[in-house]
Amino acid sequence: MNAEIVTIGDEILIGQVTDTNSGWIASELNKIGVEVKRIRAIKDNREDILKNVSEAIESSSIILITGGLGPTKDDITKITLCEYFESKLYFDEEVCKQLQSFFDSRGKKLSELNRKQAELPDACVPISNTIGTAPGMLFQKKDKIIISMPGVPYEMKEMMKQSVLPLLQKKAGPNRILQHTILTSGIAESDLAELIADWENNLPQNFSLAYLPQPGIVRLRITGKGEELVVKQEMEKRINKLESIASDFVFGHGEDTLEKVVGELLKKNKFTLSTAESCTGGYIAHLLTSISGSSDYFMGSVVSYSNDLKEKLLQVKSDDLKTYGAVSEQVVKQMAEGARKNLKTDYAIATSGIAGPTGGTKEKPVGTIWIAVTTPSKTICKKLQLGNNRLVNIQATSAAALNLLRKELI
Amino acid sequence: MNAEIVTIGDEILIGQVTDTNSGWIASELNKIGVEVKRIRAIKDNREDILKNVSEAIESSSIILITGGLGPTKDDITKITLCEYFESKLYFDEEVCKQLQSFFDSRGKKLSELNRKQAELPDACVPISNTIGTAPGMLFQKKDKIIISMPGVPYEMKEMMKQSVLPLLQKKAGPNRILQHTILTSGIAESDLAELIADWENNLPQNFSLAYLPQPGIVRLRITGKGEELVVKQEMEKRINKLESIASDFVFGHGEDTLEKVVGELLKKNKFTLSTAESCTGGYIAHLLTSISGSSDYFMGSVVSYSNDLKEKLLQVKSDDLKTYGAVSEQVVKQMAEGARKNLKTDYAIATSGIAGPTGGTKEKPVGTIWIAVTTPSKTICKKLQLGNNRLVNIQATSAAALNLLRKELI
Repeated sequence: MNAEIVTIGDEILIGQVTDTNSGWIASELNKIGVEVKRIRAIKDNREDILKNVSEAIESSSIILITGGLGPTKDDITKITLCEYFESKLYFDEEVCKQLQSFFDSRGKKLSELNRKQAELPDACVPISNTIGTAPGMLFQKKDKIIISMPGVPYEMKEMMKQSVLPLLQKKAGPNRILQHTILTSGIAESDLAELIADWENNLPQNFSLAYLPQPGIVRLRITGKGEELVVKQEMEKRINKLESIASDFVFGHGEDTLEKVVGELLKKNKFTLSTAESCTGGYIAHLLTSISGSSDYFMGSVVSYSNDLKEKLLQVKSDDLKTYGAVSEQVVKQMAEGARKNLKTDYAIATSGIAGPTGGTKEKPVGTIWIAVTTPSKTICKKLQLGNNRLVNIQATSAAALNLLRKELI
Repeated sequence: MNAEIVTIGDEILIGQVTDTNSGWIASELNKIGVEVKRIRAIKDNREDILKNVSEAIESSSIILITGGLGPTKDDITKITLCEYFESKLYFDEEVCKQLQSFFDSRGKKLSELNRKQAELPDACVPISNTIGTAPGMLFQKKDKIIISMPGVPYEMKEMMKQSVLPLLQKKAGPNRILQHTILTSGIAESDLAELIADWENNLPQNFSLAYLPQPGIVRLRITGKGEELVVKQEMEKRINKLESIASDFVFGHGEDTLEKVVGELLKKNKFTLSTAESCTGGYIAHLLTSISGSSDYFMGSVVSYSNDLKEKLLQVKSDDLKTYGAVSEQVVKQMAEGARKNLKTDYAIATSGIAGPTGGTKEKPVGTIWIAVTTPSKTICKKLQLGNNRLVNIQATSAAALNLLRKELI
């Protein structure tokens, strides 16, 4: 069984509103083994609705439509679907009763405009909207199922959970699409691809792999299709194998983040952490403190953007700043050790580099960055050579520094 | 001229990644008067790509495609478009040189996989990717323009700005959709709507207004359609009026940010700034340092997550921490003044609060936050009462603190 999602609404096409409904629906359908073939957004326009719904019905067995069901003039999904299914509007007493009680419970009068929402195409089965006013509509054409839902996200989600998903689940049978994402850091996409080439080439036909890179991190998404238990077992086997091949780089699964994984390692061992940030400008501290409960292990940070503060708050030697410059192994080492000492923590991270896009020299071009991690027993420094994009450099440096710490913690 | 946007990538169709590229592209196309007819997301699959690109070319004059251009096996957009345009791959020496210098500048070797990215269909004109490895491709079919770009958002945006939008702008006629965004802080969306209700109701028919709220900030986007010069003049008149009505809250226009506006004010007056952050955990420092050139006025930050560090690095009085607690007017005032003194700056910002979702008490529920700004002559403190969402609280607090500083600087 495959599905298409059609979003109706001009606001999407002018870029005013980001369509988050389709992603949510897609993710829910995948869980019950329904593959989403296509997502599309179209205008509130009769011709476009007729054309696109017709195209969707031709190529998929389930069509989920959202949007354009409101009570106002610009909402034309209902009358256009009515036309498409060569149907006529009738007045549904049951739906009207629900509308009446919806307004009663809010102490409001049912207006003529809202009363009209009980008029529905006689080719549809109404789907109850328990938290809004526009009912959903279920149509069938041969063996195809077409469902129209409101575009308001919480109304759509409620309708999906209460009515649409249970209905589709019954139709979907035992086959499922299972997915698992493995997170890596410290290796470029192309190097990772080379490293795991054999593993990838040996995946069974019903399995596939996708590379999803972001600054400093590459996510690997493995997808398997088939009977739930069989796929589950095979997936587990493949993941274990992959983890052993890329063990130097794998830091987590699914929704894990480096800051979460590092935080858990610190918490488990009752270690504390501080950061001394120059080129990352507080971004590592922000990542760490975006985790609820981080005050258990994260004590604080010195963002020493000026050389003065590197000396004053982190005791970096003035001579070394002059001799080697702020972006150097000597300085980043002293920054990390100064943070560990002054902020009284077990571990400390430091960063110093040229985030760009300006500020580079011939010896130290933009993207030259030093990171350091200091532990109760030693300090490790590492040089990165990144690109020209300031934000990407900040993010990639933060990921590299957190990953360096992670490796020391395990 | 109308356009279609085609996003290629399984990650969209399983709901793992929300497609934000299409909305951004749609909004940019609208600005130059190109109407977006349809947005669609499809799978990394030969048949689907061929079918959908062909459908798109039939109904629109411009087709913008993103995704599937990476160096790995699952990226098949290039070879599929090559097939569609009955073309052959050739090795583009110029693109290869660009790739080589991209890797050289990062001190990395150009791998065989990446070298293959210089192989392009001979039916296309390559579009330079200045910040990534996959070049864009421009195809033409009769009078239709088909452009394929990488899916990585920052690479795609750079390519759009540098090459694609200037090209399309030339093709679009005299009618324009002009947009102007006014940025406000320090007022809730509904209060702002009341304040400017008369102004809004008096807008001409070809003008419209949208409210775009985000934590601590409400953006107002005014859209006007018609002949460029006429709309431009009317727009200017309306904006001036709006600015005078909401002058207490307007802090910028278009792509301005609070950190940019504050940075410019500091730079102009040769003032320096530091921050002392508890609940914002370095996020204000991150915002300030995300601006290139911020080292001219931003000296650094103390992220004092623990009370110890509030005492040690910011000289907050131990007694006051005990008597009033870390989340109090007394403490946030001393944090700001301590940062100003220890980090030797003209101005300082401080934050202390309960970001949540846990950690609240009856007297100080989650969302209770104090901010302070200290200047060469005084310290101002302000209490915020926000909600339960940790990230929203961090962002809203940062916006409120930067806005408080901005008001002192003007």
